[in-house]
Amino acid sequence: MQESVELSESECEALLRAGVVGRVAISTPDGPHIVPVNYAVVDSRVIVRTTPYSVLGSNARGAVLAFEVDGFDHERQRGWSVVARGRSEVVHDAEELEQVRKVWEPRPWAAGTRSLYVAIPWTQVSGRRLGGTWDPMSTLPSRRVL
Amino acid sequence: MQESVELSESECEALLRAGVVGRVAISTPDGPHIVPVNYAVVDSRVIVRTTPYSVLGSNARGAVLAFEVDGFDHERQRGWSVVARGRSEVVHDAEELEQVRKVWEPRPWAAGTRSLYVAIPWTQVSGRRLGGTWDPMSTLPSRRVL
Repeated sequence: MQESVELSESECEALLRAGVVGRVAISTPDGPHIVPVNYAVVDSRVIVRTTPYSVLGSNARGAVLAFEVDGFDHERQRGWSVVARGRSEVVHDAEELEQVRKVWEPRPWAAGTRSLYVAIPWTQVSGRRLGGTWDPMSTLPSRRVL
Repeated sequence: MQESVELSESECEALLRAGVVGRVAISTPDGPHIVPVNYAVVDSRVIVRTTPYSVLGSNARGAVLAFEVDGFDHERQRGWSVVARGRSEVVHDAEELEQVRKVWEPRPWAAGTRSLYVAIPWTQVSGRRLGGTWDPMSTLPSRRVL
């Protein structure tokens, strides 16, 4: 079995910035939901796109959200995860949107109009890895070129 | 870009049963949290192990939880995800625990005493995949032998 090792804040941020797919958790009146999403980090905010009437679109405005990325190596039974939490904001400002789109437009995976840009400016970030000495960054299957 | 296709309930359940690592979302007084976990499915319940004083251990008893598993193929930009939701229960009954341990004991990845077994008997399960005709089950990096 593997020891759980805390990641430093800078390791967490580097992994957040390098990722492409994550999951958002949101509390709703009927309990928590998890939504897998493509995402990008712009400045110090996780940005996800959604539709206004989705679980995320209809509950996320101004709510505290938790966002998670992780990676697992099943063969070696090791893995890492990073969770960022903060109160979400809808991105409205045209200049801001343009800046977000520069990072984003390359390619969302899913088809459909996702006109709502939700930002999570994180106020807490934490992460851990299982196992001794290895670099989670080296295991990313895909990473953004920044 | 890929079309999003709904998975059938039986596809969802098969993927749930085959998985090894997932994430639990939980609503707490300070907002939602996401916790990556090893898990097993016993009967129609997701079982996770935790410590009594963790975020999960101290908030999960009797609460509605959302549990997610997914898989992504970054090269082909496709993926799948399944979310199961239900009200959690702590497993106390000795016979039940024994049954759970039969499936479970093989090997939790993380070290540490995780004495609390939390069951999520799901009442809702849904899933989707991105992309045309392919079988998410074929992409699992690891699966339980049942």
